[in-house]
Amino acid sequence: MRTALSIDVGGTKIYNTIVNEKGEIIGEIEKHSTPKTFPEIKSLFEEIIQKHEDEVDVIAFATCGAVNNTNDGILGSTGNIAKEYPSMDFKSLSNKPVFVENDANCAAWAEHIIGSSKGMPYSVMLTLGTGVGGGIILDNKLYKGKNGAAGEMHFKMRTDKHRKCTCGAWDCFEAYASGTGLKKTAEEISGNPDITTYDVIEGKRAGGQEGKPIYSGKWKVESGKLENFQLSTFNFQLDNALSPNIAQTIFSSWQNDILEGIIGLANIFDPDCIVLSGSMAEFVDIEYLENEANKQIVTTPFKVLKASAGNYSGMIGAGLLALKKL
Amino acid sequence: MRTALSIDVGGTKIYNTIVNEKGEIIGEIEKHSTPKTFPEIKSLFEEIIQKHEDEVDVIAFATCGAVNNTNDGILGSTGNIAKEYPSMDFKSLSNKPVFVENDANCAAWAEHIIGSSKGMPYSVMLTLGTGVGGGIILDNKLYKGKNGAAGEMHFKMRTDKHRKCTCGAWDCFEAYASGTGLKKTAEEISGNPDITTYDVIEGKRAGGQEGKPIYSGKWKVESGKLENFQLSTFNFQLDNALSPNIAQTIFSSWQNDILEGIIGLANIFDPDCIVLSGSMAEFVDIEYLENEANKQIVTTPFKVLKASAGNYSGMIGAGLLALKKL
Repeated sequence: MRTALSIDVGGTKIYNTIVNEKGEIIGEIEKHSTPKTFPEIKSLFEEIIQKHEDEVDVIAFATCGAVNNTNDGILGSTGNIAKEYPSMDFKSLSNKPVFVENDANCAAWAEHIIGSSKGMPYSVMLTLGTGVGGGIILDNKLYKGKNGAAGEMHFKMRTDKHRKCTCGAWDCFEAYASGTGLKKTAEEISGNPDITTYDVIEGKRAGGQEGKPIYSGKWKVESGKLENFQLSTFNFQLDNALSPNIAQTIFSSWQNDILEGIIGLANIFDPDCIVLSGSMAEFVDIEYLENEANKQIVTTPFKVLKASAGNYSGMIGAGLLALKKL
Repeated sequence: MRTALSIDVGGTKIYNTIVNEKGEIIGEIEKHSTPKTFPEIKSLFEEIIQKHEDEVDVIAFATCGAVNNTNDGILGSTGNIAKEYPSMDFKSLSNKPVFVENDANCAAWAEHIIGSSKGMPYSVMLTLGTGVGGGIILDNKLYKGKNGAAGEMHFKMRTDKHRKCTCGAWDCFEAYASGTGLKKTAEEISGNPDITTYDVIEGKRAGGQEGKPIYSGKWKVESGKLENFQLSTFNFQLDNALSPNIAQTIFSSWQNDILEGIIGLANIFDPDCIVLSGSMAEFVDIEYLENEANKQIVTTPFKVLKASAGNYSGMIGAGLLALKKL
């Protein structure tokens, strides 16, 4: 069976392994910190490739940034990676064929072939992490658009210039539905700039446990908002712990933003499913999202699913796409 | 050259004509009021078809409502037409082949073959009328989704349940970017429930003429908001005439909503162009929308174009699609 050396390139970590045509990981998972400079990144790529290229048929990159339709170069800005990275000449890194695709697109493809959306011709995947990635499968093909940059989940959640997005524009879905978005929502609702997504998730979790005391935090004292709490259930603690009610309000606001985005995508695409992946996806209530969204769409019923291809779906998808194209 | 009898079915009017394979209208345009009841609609269809079917190769419907992927039936609700309309058995209406497609999809196809988006593989058309229709062309094919309902422009413009959409959900693009949306925006900004889209367009137009006095209306007096005006340029008049400043504010708010929608679609699809059609499209500043959207997207540059296939693009597109499928 043919195999690919898959390399996942993110802003902070670079992983590599070997993937076969079934989408199975058959090598070690090797992990590296992403070097700061372009020459160092290139050297790391060369090192990984020299070590493994004899074992495989193709080199497959799942990378941050949009990738062109010929799968050999980066189209533009890629966030927090060396600014010269888009000029990388991937083809020159190996004598074997080299294939490059956007990481979110690769992950969506992995779900389509071996994961949650297997057997479904039309799916949209949302990767909810620090940011939001998107991958669109239409008629069993990865949808890339005219130049390859499609699937950017930067549609608006409001139009009053409320929250700046990392892309430079205002109020994109990414700025609300991401982990960063949850923190922002928490800051806005709690008034506490030091609040973390962890505080929200923990506060919500605490609320689900009967008899657990309701917490507030020292910032509440500092900001003079103590009067908002019911003292009968008040149990003071000198940290950021949130009242479960407030945590639930914050969480619901964040989850509702995800719901609204899902509704829009379902109306635009009439898909079989929308798949949620990424570290933040584990916190959402999939069943609620599916039921609520299906009540509100004008298209036809669809599923909301959690990704199931695992943490290395980017490398799996890159390998599968590269081997398919060989 | 083969020809189609094209029938455009809307909630208030039904048109028919004959279209050839070049997308040329070669028959009379016949116009009918849409009957109230299902049997009357069916009878009208039969009458039109009996009159013309011998002249043509195929019967092509451009209809309100979503149409299935086999192009022979309506999927669901179709707004203000007889509620049994979705059960229409189109195939039984003629011995010739019968083809059915959503009207906005037909219009988008007409633009793609003979109009503004000719030669461009990836385009999204927005029909800005009383509501908003959508048609999506991807890789030179009409995009329909898993069941045929795709292209519904019901993605959210805000998430605080501010404005109800005709679809039953809240704050869809249609509820802001349509003519009805402009009226709503005008009501919200002016405080006058009787204001019309005409008032806004006229008020804005007046503002463009130097030396023209600036109007306000009696509703301003009633609502006690006179202090907001500069009396030096104030010229009172007892009707709905708007201050050009207010008209401009309303118009800009509406046009900005269209801009925000266009940005989202460009980020999702990475299209060659977004085409604006419909009665409200004549008022928007296409150049402004194109320039501003291209500044804000994370995908690659695209065009914003006005539709050019004319008022009967629905019938042209239906004919072209039907003849292509024959």
